[in-house]
Amino acid sequence: MTLKTLGAKAAAALDQELMSTCAFSIDQLMELAGLAVSQAVYRVHPLSRGARVLVACGPGNNGGDGLVAARHLFYYGYKPTIFYPKRSKNDLYQRLAKQLEDLDVPFVDDFQSAMGSTDHIVDAIFGFSFSGEVREPFPAVIRALEKTRLPVTSVDAPSSWDIESGPPSSGLGSSFMPTTLVSLTAPKPLVKHFKGRHFVGGRFVSPSIAKKYDFEVPPYEGVDQVVEIPSGSGKI
Amino acid sequence: MTLKTLGAKAAAALDQELMSTCAFSIDQLMELAGLAVSQAVYRVHPLSRGARVLVACGPGNNGGDGLVAARHLFYYGYKPTIFYPKRSKNDLYQRLAKQLEDLDVPFVDDFQSAMGSTDHIVDAIFGFSFSGEVREPFPAVIRALEKTRLPVTSVDAPSSWDIESGPPSSGLGSSFMPTTLVSLTAPKPLVKHFKGRHFVGGRFVSPSIAKKYDFEVPPYEGVDQVVEIPSGSGKI
Repeated sequence: MTLKTLGAKAAAALDQELMSTCAFSIDQLMELAGLAVSQAVYRVHPLSRGARVLVACGPGNNGGDGLVAARHLFYYGYKPTIFYPKRSKNDLYQRLAKQLEDLDVPFVDDFQSAMGSTDHIVDAIFGFSFSGEVREPFPAVIRALEKTRLPVTSVDAPSSWDIESGPPSSGLGSSFMPTTLVSLTAPKPLVKHFKGRHFVGGRFVSPSIAKKYDFEVPPYEGVDQVVEIPSGSGKI
Repeated sequence: MTLKTLGAKAAAALDQELMSTCAFSIDQLMELAGLAVSQAVYRVHPLSRGARVLVACGPGNNGGDGLVAARHLFYYGYKPTIFYPKRSKNDLYQRLAKQLEDLDVPFVDDFQSAMGSTDHIVDAIFGFSFSGEVREPFPAVIRALEKTRLPVTSVDAPSSWDIESGPPSSGLGSSFMPTTLVSLTAPKPLVKHFKGRHFVGGRFVSPSIAKKYDFEVPPYEGVDQVVEIPSGSGKI
């Protein structure tokens, strides 16, 4: 099985189409995306391996997915901690943060010291709309993710990687390799550089949309919101 | 184990609080409620017993939960059919219906003839805000649900039942007993009259809200969005 990928422009167009002609609200899509991420974390990092999960959230949709995932992880019995240094003023993100605050989930300012007391990290910093430079305060976070031996689950893209060409050839992010990647709706071209456990989530893409954008809906099982893609797939 | 229940007024107040101080959007809550219903149907009616599911949707939130459940059931491999005779003009419900139309899920006008070619029925007609009279065109539907031998899963309340006192003592609905009930957030007082498989869904209620409204969050397992309550519980 080879898995077709969706480039950055196509992924942005698909997102727009889901929220216009397909009539989904961003609240719905983000809830299902974050739920998918939480289920992948549950699979790769069962509670028996430690309940502490540090979720690094960026300023955009990827960060929103992380906030939703953290809430579901709380309900599964995990103890999430949130690093969310660039809070969006967008109403949806503020509400997602409030939902966590109501659960007494801590928000921390110092990512590196928080890494010292966690069992798993979720990288929800940058997603498919990332390009160019990693802005402050995230360079230090990426450097920490490069060095850590803790398991890291990246949402849609390992943050700092180029969506098309993968890890930077040198410098910041060039040695960042998360242990798990959760591709949302469809894998992005960067997946061919990824070595680790790979999941696809987004069980809301209609057959006609998948056909239009020329990718396969993977074989989800039961009521699962994610499916693990066997190693060796997803190569171009 | 006895399970505390939530009366109609308290359930309405809880819903309002979730969408105001708790910062949830109705899109989020309905997505999670419908997802819970779909998971309960998957448990009580696995695909091997027949993939055809007829979902009867009322004009309000209960109907919206049914529309969401039908979409998730489609993705699990079921073949849903929708009976939705009183379509709301509300934007959210219109979008939920569009999401099903994009999957070529059929909407039918004749409930009784649709019953002739289904394996399971979801009753998403009336929820906790129901009181008084069953309005047209639903009396004939309730009569059909009273007579059918098909398994029926009711969302939050067997439609036509009084939220506090349960089935009408005589006339329409008095002999309606669904095979499955999915209580959302917490069981309603009517549950003490229900004989069948009982699930609770709504894994988004914070411990502090459950405490404030004086009900227990049931022991969900793994990533499940529903939990089955052993028979004999839920009695006052």
